[in-house]
Amino acid sequence: MTPNIPEIVEEVRQKFERYEQALIDKDVEVLDDTFWNSPLTIRLALHENGFGFDEIHAHRVRRPPGPGIKLERVRLDILTLGRDYATVNLIFKMRGRGDALARQSQTWVRFPELGWKVVSAHVSVTEQAPAY
Amino acid sequence: MTPNIPEIVEEVRQKFERYEQALIDKDVEVLDDTFWNSPLTIRLALHENGFGFDEIHAHRVRRPPGPGIKLERVRLDILTLGRDYATVNLIFKMRGRGDALARQSQTWVRFPELGWKVVSAHVSVTEQAPAY
Repeated sequence: MTPNIPEIVEEVRQKFERYEQALIDKDVEVLDDTFWNSPLTIRLALHENGFGFDEIHAHRVRRPPGPGIKLERVRLDILTLGRDYATVNLIFKMRGRGDALARQSQTWVRFPELGWKVVSAHVSVTEQAPAY
Repeated sequence: MTPNIPEIVEEVRQKFERYEQALIDKDVEVLDDTFWNSPLTIRLALHENGFGFDEIHAHRVRRPPGPGIKLERVRLDILTLGRDYATVNLIFKMRGRGDALARQSQTWVRFPELGWKVVSAHVSVTEQAPAY
């Protein structure tokens, strides 16, 4: 369960950045490809909770085009444990929200036949900016 | 990477319930024991972001006693993958928040020498109650 083997971190980083770009582009194919296609996958987003891949996909399709909610990254933490398990936590400033910080958390698993997939995700905005 | 092997789900469920009881009891020892003692552990809570075990511990110590924010569980989803990885997602009604739903997500890893530990957690409240 070695943490942060550099090449594993790099694999997850590339997958994460591909997903972030797909959010900007509203590339539903890449968004869908990022998440595990299973009724067990959960995505708790800012204004919607998606239980299972089909609900998550429906939220993707309804997503408006445009640059999205992310204005500026504050910090990005990728943690890998062994070669098949990772979490990603991004703190970011939200468009139109002043100093309030938003948080995006993902749990990634590498499936033998599917590669890296998000199995659980959670996005929220804090009511007040926490002190750092 | 078999999902939801019953005895593994049960292991995680017991760890989760122990943690929930410790939140009510403000049992700092159990709260600390639940999270991975590492600078890489992250806990994004309602009003505070904890990066690393030491910050998370400091938040525990500052936590006021009392019954906490949880009024009623709406749904609890435990997902295990293989024998060493798990996510827990709890949707709950928050004390004093009417119908707004809160969400608690945890990523658990079983370390060979430490047992099950939370490596990443995220708690938030939705601004509007999502439809189910």
